[in-house]
Amino acid sequence: MTTSAILLISSPDKKGLVYSLTRFIYEHQGNILHAEQHIDEENAYFFMRIEWDLTLFDIPREHILSALEPLQNEWAMEATLSFSDEPTRVALFVSRQDHCLADLLNRVHHQNLNMDIPLIISNHADHEALARFYGIPYHHIPITPDNKPLVEAEQRRLLKEHNIDLVVLARYMQVLSSDFVDQWPHQIINVHHSFLPAFVGANPYAQAYARGVKLIGSTAHFVTPILDDGPIIAQHVVNVSHKDSLSSFIQKGKELEKHVLTEAVKKYTEHKILVFKNRTVVFD
Amino acid sequence: MTTSAILLISSPDKKGLVYSLTRFIYEHQGNILHAEQHIDEENAYFFMRIEWDLTLFDIPREHILSALEPLQNEWAMEATLSFSDEPTRVALFVSRQDHCLADLLNRVHHQNLNMDIPLIISNHADHEALARFYGIPYHHIPITPDNKPLVEAEQRRLLKEHNIDLVVLARYMQVLSSDFVDQWPHQIINVHHSFLPAFVGANPYAQAYARGVKLIGSTAHFVTPILDDGPIIAQHVVNVSHKDSLSSFIQKGKELEKHVLTEAVKKYTEHKILVFKNRTVVFD
Amino acid sequence: MTTSAILLISSPDKKGLVYSLTRFIYEHQGNILHAEQHIDEENAYFFMRIEWDLTLFDIPREHILSALEPLQNEWAMEATLSFSDEPTRVALFVSRQDHCLADLLNRVHHQNLNMDIPLIISNHADHEALARFYGIPYHHIPITPDNKPLVEAEQRRLLKEHNIDLVVLARYMQVLSSDFVDQWPHQIINVHHSFLPAFVGANPYAQAYARGVKLIGSTAHFVTPILDDGPIIAQHVVNVSHKDSLSSFIQKGKELEKHVLTEAVKKYTEHKILVFKNRTVVFD
Amino acid sequence: MTTSAILLISSPDKKGLVYSLTRFIYEHQGNILHAEQHIDEENAYFFMRIEWDLTLFDIPREHILSALEPLQNEWAMEATLSFSDEPTRVALFVSRQDHCLADLLNRVHHQNLNMDIPLIISNHADHEALARFYGIPYHHIPITPDNKPLVEAEQRRLLKEHNIDLVVLARYMQVLSSDFVDQWPHQIINVHHSFLPAFVGANPYAQAYARGVKLIGSTAHFVTPILDDGPIIAQHVVNVSHKDSLSSFIQKGKELEKHVLTEAVKKYTEHKILVFKNRTVVFD
Repeated sequence: MTTSAILLISSPDKKGLVYSLTRFIYEHQGNILHAEQHIDEENAYFFMRIEWDLTLFDIPREHILSALEPLQNEWAMEATLSFSDEPTRVALFVSRQDHCLADLLNRVHHQNLNMDIPLIISNHADHEALARFYGIPYHHIPITPDNKPLVEAEQRRLLKEHNIDLVVLARYMQVLSSDFVDQWPHQIINVHHSFLPAFVGANPYAQAYARGVKLIGSTAHFVTPILDDGPIIAQHVVNVSHKDSLSSFIQKGKELEKHVLTEAVKKYTEHKILVFKNRTVVFD
Repeated sequence: MTTSAILLISSPDKKGLVYSLTRFIYEHQGNILHAEQHIDEENAYFFMRIEWDLTLFDIPREHILSALEPLQNEWAMEATLSFSDEPTRVALFVSRQDHCLADLLNRVHHQNLNMDIPLIISNHADHEALARFYGIPYHHIPITPDNKPLVEAEQRRLLKEHNIDLVVLARYMQVLSSDFVDQWPHQIINVHHSFLPAFVGANPYAQAYARGVKLIGSTAHFVTPILDDGPIIAQHVVNVSHKDSLSSFIQKGKELEKHVLTEAVKKYTEHKILVFKNRTVVFD
Repeated sequence: MTTSAILLISSPDKKGLVYSLTRFIYEHQGNILHAEQHIDEENAYFFMRIEWDLTLFDIPREHILSALEPLQNEWAMEATLSFSDEPTRVALFVSRQDHCLADLLNRVHHQNLNMDIPLIISNHADHEALARFYGIPYHHIPITPDNKPLVEAEQRRLLKEHNIDLVVLARYMQVLSSDFVDQWPHQIINVHHSFLPAFVGANPYAQAYARGVKLIGSTAHFVTPILDDGPIIAQHVVNVSHKDSLSSFIQKGKELEKHVLTEAVKKYTEHKILVFKNRTVVFD
Repeated sequence: MTTSAILLISSPDKKGLVYSLTRFIYEHQGNILHAEQHIDEENAYFFMRIEWDLTLFDIPREHILSALEPLQNEWAMEATLSFSDEPTRVALFVSRQDHCLADLLNRVHHQNLNMDIPLIISNHADHEALARFYGIPYHHIPITPDNKPLVEAEQRRLLKEHNIDLVVLARYMQVLSSDFVDQWPHQIINVHHSFLPAFVGANPYAQAYARGVKLIGSTAHFVTPILDDGPIIAQHVVNVSHKDSLSSFIQKGKELEKHVLTEAVKKYTEHKILVFKNRTVVFD
């Protein structure tokens, strides 16, 4: 497996930008492996993901970003750089329900996802055996009506200690404070158990059941300070009918939640998501 | 093709009901072709669709309902009776956009739907050539800010004159009055161009685009006096991404609208829909 | 949860059959909870699944089948009787790949499937830790070119010892002998990693990749003595494109295999599958 | 609407290719609107679709290809150039069944597809009224056991006379000769009414019904001299069950055929399909 560099770019759309970037890579002996771009015509904004082989690239990886600085300034470009041999460092947050947790752990165990999980954080002790089976440290931090600030302080300390890139709320039923959310902008992914924006808030399955819908959905999105309003990354649905009870809505919904969360996390670890004006660009 | 009778039943759930019905049919020499039932456990309510061959049935079709009266009383049953050789009589209402209209006309023309269309009603003259191509009378009834009651009076007159069973709003952009709606309870089907209850009201595609959803939907539902709130019959969705503009949302949505409306109308003409507490039972 | 009896019936189609059955249940104080029927018109054959509440039923469960004997004779009916409180006893067979195994174990653990797993049988030792985590006895029976008859003898002994109802081949890569298959007719479910009948036999993903298909599939079917030819229970597909490599075909295929196998096993444990002339009736 | 040029490229994969192309466009004042690339790693082959604004481009459209010649030679590149304001010229071939024909005509009429239809060719007279409704010349060329070469000669004459880019076999049930096919390589699209390679040849629905599949499919592919073996462009499937008869297989299949053929034709008219080694690259 060759090691590659992956550059994610957003900038105002201007002629010559792609040319400048490909010249930069070419002149430093990089071979482009993948390139995807998108132009938001409404906002005249440009997005690109470009991945190149590092084998012969003549700039050491730690100096690439500074070498790109003149280009960034010229094109008013925001750029993020990642490397294929540096897995995303992910913290999993979970409450009582473990279907998303178990699914993600199983996938990482089978190396389906390019990520490391240095820790699991839960307000319940329930999943310690599962965590132990996969060899992942489990931090049980109980929450009471009064200790929320202390809990978040401890969570933040752990995230920093472990250099976490991404927090995944794998059915974590506590609302995070704005301060917490602001510290990891577009680095916290939640799975909401409905087809947003239908059925915002609590008990979406019960709401959907009462309305008599014929499809139920699930949504993976970045967390922002406004509840269930962050940029949507992935949505799936499944058919339901009069034969389904509320409990079968929930059962079917769990399958959706696993799929949609896995899809979103996979895209993140592949560095394929860009955010602009509360919407996402998710490259294939 | 044998002619069959189709009975749709709703009643409180009680032991022996299925037995009583099947005995009635058996004792009168009917052969059951299809039977589907559903029990709403929450409400202890029973729903059934039962279809039997009329060839040897010893009650003439016009006397079947009265022969069933004792059973209806015994079980507090609501019953609707139809016959496979009597196509549903459908009026199509349409405004400017003709994709649903064209699709339905084409399907009826190819005998995919067991229905007759005695008339099309529109507030625009646009679709006269299309109606003529399929040989269906086209009533152009323009609407002004002031003439709405007159328009509805004329529409109601036409529906009665033609013994209409079902009104299909094939992208008809006028809100019908409560009086109108109450006169055809669960006999008016609308297609709403979103995945209800997300994006109720006007411009759902623009709302969906602004929210950055990854799926758009379409909903066919019975019309009730509350806007976009009637019992849902069918819902479909299709994937969208950052590559889609608002106009491609609308384009993809039109496909959904056709599918979902066709599905709902087909189920209605097959006498497979029952309504209970603002939800539908839609048999396979 | 009430306990119910579930009767699966196949018979030549004749008038009065449904009536006879519902009378039998009614006269013995059974309340019908679910009833689904199907008529194969081509073959004039009738299929039914009928489920009733046992609470007040006046025949003890061990005598129900003999009480039904007169009806069975009258209508030339094949009948199978099961009870909702007697979970299906399932043996899992597995070779190297564990994705289907892990998925099924997790689902049983979370009580999503009404079945017990008294044993896992594998020709490899790889999955002992996983089996132990879920507390299920693991029988490692290695296979050499010469010992196949001995292996099958031991497998058959274990299946009988544990009163196994259903054998699930959860990616078990050995072909079972005709003798073995004949002993458990329509009681062995296999997952084939293609959309049968396309790509029968070995390496279906490589075949599909070479053909340049745009969808790959997976099929769960009953095992018969003819390879990959048994009655199909469930099939799923997923989109692929030029962007997919053979290894991503395999990765996506694994997801399909899990879904399709789970669906088939679930239907079996709910007693919803009937087989007739190498095709299945699978009730909703 | 700006006018754009669209270049489709295939070439051996070599470092600097993207850079060379983007420099060419940049130096001639072109603004890149869309760019998609794909590398077939197995064959070390490169594919690209690049679309740029012609407004300020300083090479007249008729000279662009010759200006690209040095690049083509340097990189051993095959290149096809199209323009967004020059709709694809499509001939529709059809036999008895008109569902695909009617669907395509309706879409072109509503300007959903960037194509002109200068003529329809059929071995039956059935669709003349439909063609007339849409104002398209209809050539009825009957086929007898003996006149096939004459028919093809006349068809070829018409295709040339009308400068046809693409032939769409919209349920045309005659096999075209190798000579005919070779004259329009990767310019003839057929819809096969099964999920290829399952059920090659005649009566695929009957074959699928006999096998008891749970999904039926449809495939749009380029025609090659080997029957049903050409590069696949699009495939769709739909669920079927024991409730479906052969005639409902056919009914559901018609919907699939329309979708899959429309999708393939749309991609062709958007210049998004490349063929390599009997497989397609179909850009989003």
